[in-house]
Amino acid sequence: MASEAKVGGVGTESLLALLRDRGPLPMAELSERRGVSRSKTGQDVAALRRLGLVADGGQAPSRGGRPSGIVTLSDHIRYAGVDIGATSIGVAITNGYCEVLDFVEEDADVRDGPEAILERVVDLITGLVPPSVTPVVGVGLGVPAPVSFSEGRSIVPPLMPGWDRYPIRDLLSEALGVPVTVDNDVNIMALGEMHGGVARGVSDFLFVKVGTGIGCGIVVHDQVYRGVDGCAGDIGHIRAGESTTLCHCGRIGCLEAEFGGAALARQAVVSAQSGDSPFLTRRLKEVGHLTAADVGAANAAGDAAATRLIRHGGHVIGEVLAGLVNFFNPSKIVLGGGLAQLGPLLLAEIRGVVLQRSTPLATTNLSVELSGLGDLAGVTGAAWLASEHFIEAFDRHPATEAAAPVGKTA
Amino acid sequence: MASEAKVGGVGTESLLALLRDRGPLPMAELSERRGVSRSKTGQDVAALRRLGLVADGGQAPSRGGRPSGIVTLSDHIRYAGVDIGATSIGVAITNGYCEVLDFVEEDADVRDGPEAILERVVDLITGLVPPSVTPVVGVGLGVPAPVSFSEGRSIVPPLMPGWDRYPIRDLLSEALGVPVTVDNDVNIMALGEMHGGVARGVSDFLFVKVGTGIGCGIVVHDQVYRGVDGCAGDIGHIRAGESTTLCHCGRIGCLEAEFGGAALARQAVVSAQSGDSPFLTRRLKEVGHLTAADVGAANAAGDAAATRLIRHGGHVIGEVLAGLVNFFNPSKIVLGGGLAQLGPLLLAEIRGVVLQRSTPLATTNLSVELSGLGDLAGVTGAAWLASEHFIEAFDRHPATEAAAPVGKTA
Repeated sequence: MASEAKVGGVGTESLLALLRDRGPLPMAELSERRGVSRSKTGQDVAALRRLGLVADGGQAPSRGGRPSGIVTLSDHIRYAGVDIGATSIGVAITNGYCEVLDFVEEDADVRDGPEAILERVVDLITGLVPPSVTPVVGVGLGVPAPVSFSEGRSIVPPLMPGWDRYPIRDLLSEALGVPVTVDNDVNIMALGEMHGGVARGVSDFLFVKVGTGIGCGIVVHDQVYRGVDGCAGDIGHIRAGESTTLCHCGRIGCLEAEFGGAALARQAVVSAQSGDSPFLTRRLKEVGHLTAADVGAANAAGDAAATRLIRHGGHVIGEVLAGLVNFFNPSKIVLGGGLAQLGPLLLAEIRGVVLQRSTPLATTNLSVELSGLGDLAGVTGAAWLASEHFIEAFDRHPATEAAAPVGKTA
Repeated sequence: MASEAKVGGVGTESLLALLRDRGPLPMAELSERRGVSRSKTGQDVAALRRLGLVADGGQAPSRGGRPSGIVTLSDHIRYAGVDIGATSIGVAITNGYCEVLDFVEEDADVRDGPEAILERVVDLITGLVPPSVTPVVGVGLGVPAPVSFSEGRSIVPPLMPGWDRYPIRDLLSEALGVPVTVDNDVNIMALGEMHGGVARGVSDFLFVKVGTGIGCGIVVHDQVYRGVDGCAGDIGHIRAGESTTLCHCGRIGCLEAEFGGAALARQAVVSAQSGDSPFLTRRLKEVGHLTAADVGAANAAGDAAATRLIRHGGHVIGEVLAGLVNFFNPSKIVLGGGLAQLGPLLLAEIRGVVLQRSTPLATTNLSVELSGLGDLAGVTGAAWLASEHFIEAFDRHPATEAAAPVGKTA
């Protein structure tokens, strides 16, 4: 199903994509990069200016020839990026460069079903940018489930009642009156890091999200690889070394049974109840439950049992990633999601195991690092998907209605 | 390094690629598929005919319109495909459709070094087609090592003295006087299955070779994915479940320590010496050593210990492949290499474990099957690489010398 639509590439022919990806550029450089004459670029820029999509950005320092005016994207372009998690909704409004201008996040339970969740999405977007001000020209949205990218639907086996094959794209687009693009939540985080984070300019990398569960975004030759059923990167149920823990999926020894927010909270309770961790015992008594953040706090306070839990987590995920490094030979692994905040100990453990367990050649050019965008990775990537859709549609039909609102509200 | 050169895609603009990939075609269909007029196609075909690259193939049955002549590739086009294994050299001569016309294989030890091995390659090719008859217009070659595809060199850490960064492409090309393309041995097998075997028309699949060692060819969107260091698909050292066997690489529990020709031969000796397997005990006494083929023969003769060894091998490789199915969500896994001949028991065990251990969504559209080309997968894929190089070079410069020999020797 999914997987075919092009969402990567620099789009050297597209003025809008060039400006988005490289920032404001002198007219001369725009012409060079597009391989067309300066007068042709001048005409194209003038047309975009009339539509309110680009603006003048002053004069570039002369390089000896004619002075060249700098072209910028209009300040009035707005995209919305939405990141639906298992327990939260995040919404960002970005400018034309997919830089976040405004961001809100609220708790939500994805199990409430698509109608309730998408209603909140509409409210949050219109709360941030009332349509009467500067309406968004496109929305990108990630959901914590496999997605049929070409159909804009989630394909969900368990745990998300009402979401299976729900036409997210079409219904949300109808409600908001702008195009919507839907992808998996980890894929949009990978896109965010690729276009605005630590994976800028990196063609082949993995984005590993460690949140409640564990998932992976795969970027091959500058494009997200989604697999034939839209579920590529579902690494949470790969067998983790010699683990024999029962996973919620019914199998033995899955990565998610050993690590991730849910597993860590469970292990923390065991540590608290056994008395291994005085810190966690105290905390459990105080608040009645424990989370991954409590383990992080315990570790920071020098609690040995908490440190052991984090190292164990780093070890099992490192083993799985080592296998994927052998298989995929990426140049980078970016670690994100809530548990990436557990700190340098987790990263160090993962790095160590990956270096030990992968073949030396596969790690020659490999770096393993933390997300550069943190909480904003998903919404940034979602906004980028929205921009990609907008620019592709505009380049196909330059006089589309989609472009009109930007100019009118300027 | 590697990984960038384009070796896939149908090349809808290229007459030669269209004919190679789709077989002889009526002139009318050629025009339709290229999206150009019949008179333009007629001119192009006439030019190719003058160069001796295509020939007339009779009249196509009329579809109501004008009768349309069938265009075929010239019978005189010859490619050579070379498959260098750890212990053998295979050389095939193919026609322009990459169909094998002639094939020889001989024992060889890759540790003899590149000079000795490549000298044999030259002898074998010129033995099959003396340059005075119909010279080959291109050679493709696979080596059992990571390859820098763009440089045409092998990049070999251990076990292959003399091969590290050896300029295979340039030296062999000089010796033979035709272009040479070099790739990893498993990648060429994947290419063979994609263009002439059971993966025809399949965009995203894995080719798993189980020979002395175990490797994997990865096809993403119709192209071989080679990784940033040219070593993608090196799955032999992925940790296999709860295994604690010491691998020759110095790590514990690698897939290759549990399965593959070397591991199986070692396990067979243990079974023979312990008396578990009367068949293998007898065989070891007779010939002094055991191979994977002996285990296959023992299993076929109803020897329970041999059956257990094969099932164990299927189990551990199935566990690793299940993880890769979750990660990569391919539509097909093709199993090849010498040990694929162990028969239906191995395939059944692998299929069973993959279905049990992968997520249900990832196996919805998955098939796991045996190589369609067997011993010829590698040489077929190597010849296809040669054809791709020839056609690309020809399409860039239609009047190249490379094309000339075909016509002249007709």
